[in-house]
Amino acid sequence: MDEKRLEQQIAFCREIDKEKFIGRQTWLTGATRKENDAEHAWHMAVMTVLLSEYANEEIDVLRTMTMLLIHDLVEIYAGDTYAYDEEGKKTQKRRELVAADRLFQMLPEDQGKKFREIWEEFEAENTPESRFARTMDNLQPMMLNAATDGKSWADRGIRLSQILGRNKNTAKGSEVLWEYAKENFLQPNLEKGRIVEDVPLNEQNK
Amino acid sequence: MDEKRLEQQIAFCREIDKEKFIGRQTWLTGATRKENDAEHAWHMAVMTVLLSEYANEEIDVLRTMTMLLIHDLVEIYAGDTYAYDEEGKKTQKRRELVAADRLFQMLPEDQGKKFREIWEEFEAENTPESRFARTMDNLQPMMLNAATDGKSWADRGIRLSQILGRNKNTAKGSEVLWEYAKENFLQPNLEKGRIVEDVPLNEQNK
Repeated sequence: MDEKRLEQQIAFCREIDKEKFIGRQTWLTGATRKENDAEHAWHMAVMTVLLSEYANEEIDVLRTMTMLLIHDLVEIYAGDTYAYDEEGKKTQKRRELVAADRLFQMLPEDQGKKFREIWEEFEAENTPESRFARTMDNLQPMMLNAATDGKSWADRGIRLSQILGRNKNTAKGSEVLWEYAKENFLQPNLEKGRIVEDVPLNEQNK
Repeated sequence: MDEKRLEQQIAFCREIDKEKFIGRQTWLTGATRKENDAEHAWHMAVMTVLLSEYANEEIDVLRTMTMLLIHDLVEIYAGDTYAYDEEGKKTQKRRELVAADRLFQMLPEDQGKKFREIWEEFEAENTPESRFARTMDNLQPMMLNAATDGKSWADRGIRLSQILGRNKNTAKGSEVLWEYAKENFLQPNLEKGRIVEDVPLNEQNK
């Protein structure tokens, strides 16, 4: 038994507890508080078990779930960058690269390398798994926003063009789920004025 | 595309958001607040990716992670039962069976059956995957209790005999991790008096 290896693994497991304190902008159902990164990751992993049948391409479910479970870990050091925070997004990549260096080197070399590769794959969106993971990462908050009467969108005066920009790759992971989201999450909130309708919903993303 | 199927799946995904409000007795590192079920499940799933190499028997990692991600869902309706709540444990099984019936029937039949089977497998602890999942379910809160200077144990005057009873099957999933936990999580807290030492640590579980 390699004691140093196990020590490193446990130290990492303890460190990532901090992800539970990284707040996101999504309101949970009931709208009494917002979500954190660990809750978000858990939710998407379960959703992947149930919804992987709608992936455009066949996916390795274990790899996709692992990707979703760990892809926000860098935010422990880099902080969460809100999807529509244009200033924050300018430095996001640099902050997250520094965080990845710091975090993944805590692990034994083989596992640090594996986690880093999976995180980079998510960022690059160039595999069936990472495309579907991105779809989940966009679908899950839209589902919760719709379940809270569009609160996150309305509070910040979010425009449809911003949402469509954010979701420009959602259909690449699953056309079925993107169509569902437009019809069931976006359309009702456009009708109620919870999202500012500055562009038409169905002329883009076709 | 089976619209009813997708509707059922999304309704289930929305419903399980409530797991984020099911509180546990474990303090998070920093001890500013306690953990919820979704955070707990996320943490164990990541730990399984990293620690599955210590399972006594070879395990299917995807099945084990799925088990850990969903095994507490019944608590959405049944509530969390604290490991040392002897009164609550008397009715736990019954409450959780009623909850399972209610929750899993929300899903399309095949997926409801699958989730129910995985949940029952976790409860029965009769497969390599469920034995390792139980090890994770015991190891993760011990790790956090140790990281918060034994706060959960000390606040409630927990005795070592209670902890050993709770952990009677921890070594069945991983002897290596149980030995590690005894030495690194329990022993220091016995020495500091954060756990009441009513029995010897190392004469049991051999």
